[in-house]
Amino acid sequence: MRIAGEWYRTIRVADDGRSVDVIDQRALPFSFEIMRLTTVEQAAFAISEMVVRGAPLIGATAAYGVCLALLKNPMHGSLDRALELLGATRPTAVNLRWALEVMDEAVRYLPVEERVAAAYQRAARICDDDVEISKSIGRHGLAIFRELAAAKGSGPLNILTHCNAGWLATVDWGTALAPIYMAHDEGVGVHVWVDETRPRNQGASLTAYELGAHGVPHSVIVDNCGGHLMQHGMVDVCIVGTDRTTAAGDVANKIGTYLKALAARDNGVPFYVALPQTTIDWQARDGVAEIPIEEREAREVRFISGLGPDGRVVEVELTPPSSPAANYAFDVTPARLVTGFITDRGVCEASLDGLLSLFPEWESDVREEGFE
Amino acid sequence: MRIAGEWYRTIRVADDGRSVDVIDQRALPFSFEIMRLTTVEQAAFAISEMVVRGAPLIGATAAYGVCLALLKNPMHGSLDRALELLGATRPTAVNLRWALEVMDEAVRYLPVEERVAAAYQRAARICDDDVEISKSIGRHGLAIFRELAAAKGSGPLNILTHCNAGWLATVDWGTALAPIYMAHDEGVGVHVWVDETRPRNQGASLTAYELGAHGVPHSVIVDNCGGHLMQHGMVDVCIVGTDRTTAAGDVANKIGTYLKALAARDNGVPFYVALPQTTIDWQARDGVAEIPIEEREAREVRFISGLGPDGRVVEVELTPPSSPAANYAFDVTPARLVTGFITDRGVCEASLDGLLSLFPEWESDVREEGFE
Repeated sequence: MRIAGEWYRTIRVADDGRSVDVIDQRALPFSFEIMRLTTVEQAAFAISEMVVRGAPLIGATAAYGVCLALLKNPMHGSLDRALELLGATRPTAVNLRWALEVMDEAVRYLPVEERVAAAYQRAARICDDDVEISKSIGRHGLAIFRELAAAKGSGPLNILTHCNAGWLATVDWGTALAPIYMAHDEGVGVHVWVDETRPRNQGASLTAYELGAHGVPHSVIVDNCGGHLMQHGMVDVCIVGTDRTTAAGDVANKIGTYLKALAARDNGVPFYVALPQTTIDWQARDGVAEIPIEEREAREVRFISGLGPDGRVVEVELTPPSSPAANYAFDVTPARLVTGFITDRGVCEASLDGLLSLFPEWESDVREEGFE
Repeated sequence: MRIAGEWYRTIRVADDGRSVDVIDQRALPFSFEIMRLTTVEQAAFAISEMVVRGAPLIGATAAYGVCLALLKNPMHGSLDRALELLGATRPTAVNLRWALEVMDEAVRYLPVEERVAAAYQRAARICDDDVEISKSIGRHGLAIFRELAAAKGSGPLNILTHCNAGWLATVDWGTALAPIYMAHDEGVGVHVWVDETRPRNQGASLTAYELGAHGVPHSVIVDNCGGHLMQHGMVDVCIVGTDRTTAAGDVANKIGTYLKALAARDNGVPFYVALPQTTIDWQARDGVAEIPIEEREAREVRFISGLGPDGRVVEVELTPPSSPAANYAFDVTPARLVTGFITDRGVCEASLDGLLSLFPEWESDVREEGFE
């Protein structure tokens, strides 16, 4: 993505060839800051404290975290500690697990002196692959948007999205937002309803920032609003990302996604999930029963950050000091509520058959596990 | 309700016998402030700026607004101006219209010199009646909670509520919260999931404040969270208030209510609406098509107030300055998603037949209009 004339990725190796620069997303939308990571502990901090977030970017950051650990100490003990530390940062995103497995495989059986270079190469490929995946998702989603816009005839295509599945959630382009950028660039008129996405407001801060920077028409709404808009024909299509998708097509995504999927179904609005194949958990079936849902600290609900009257970012308290709060970070949208998956290989039904039609190489693994 | 040892109503005539004192709900939960209203303009301000809110309390405040107008000038021109000014403050709540009609009837045909006293008497009766209505709703809801708790067997009854339909929304006791207070007081173990209710956070500020002051166990959650809780069996019943209920049983309530009703239906969780009969709009049928939904200023979405680090309430900006926002204040929950109405006359099905079984005096009016 282009910011003030310069082309950025959300993560890249610094000029020293070793450190890793990421955009500190906690400072957005009011300030654009780069955080430099030089140790695996900093990489783990960046993931768990949500300096970076979004399933694909979490995977990329974890991959470079392994590089930073090996740079300091390339022995197996160091590798194991890095995998454990990074693996414990966020429980829901499956890309994290996937990226760590890929990195482990890429370096474990190499001579010690080759590990660091191999790790950086593999991490760079994860990033490059992610960009290609996002572009493919964008092209497949664009075809759907074109069709919906043609069927609508006049006026912009009103698209509702939840949380941030844009370039800030990936290495570049995004998942759910990639087709929106492409549609806008190619002259398909779009307008995006941006759910603010409490408690961390990734919609109001990150998605609104991204869309604004790219010039895409949008309106921020509170998370409560989408149902009303759909009842009144003001949403033509919903599109969201996912942190983990089961082989049966259930989708774990940011808390509140399920509520929008219910409203879409109740009002006949198509509900699409954009996903890189790395978010598919081929071992999981029943998402509600099997996907671990991260419980984060109450503070994220009880406080919120914003730009104060003096131009500085300040955190304010929203609830009575004695009131407890609960903070579940994701929910699961059952496959029955999903119109289709937009993947890097094309579009399919949200079901095992649908997924296998695009990813037939998983057929034997999945069937072996006795999954019907 | 009792606050720091003193029994309060949310609205009462001051010691001077003319001014009207209300709790400034914009300052809660961090500060308890009384605002004194001495003119009809101040009463209108209090309603439109949400110093007071909640359908029953809006009605009571409008009633006293008429008193204040007549106090200054008891002629018909003054009465008409007051009715117009107050009637334009909030478009969705039907109690407002009802209270103004009641006040108009009570004074219009009286000799000029009797109007002021009659107005104050009628407004006082609206308030006293509202307290009795809340108590009745509480008793009928309590019976339902008792049954649900008995069926559950062990553990507290987990109740989810949206926005604030407690004593701060009425003159005393509340609608949706009245049975919760009564259940808690009578030893039925309850725990309340409090939706924060963006954009104005009436849940996180007012409901959490009320419940905390009364000692009722509760947890604040973001509006996105309820679906996840219901999927995991963590909600036994939902109960909300309403700003307007159609004769067919559709319910306009704070934006986001519809999403929770959808989740309740999807997970087999009972969804009750507590309502004083004054919120029934016997002329309206199809809520989505007929109930006007207030659109409020974008600022309420783009900014939020909270307690800053220096102990003062401060407003912070949440979105990029260039991002527009849309702010619809209510949505409509179709009758098909509502398990039952808890009214001051008892419990009924959310349908015309259900409502007429409790309010048969409306039968001829409704049938005359050709409503099937």
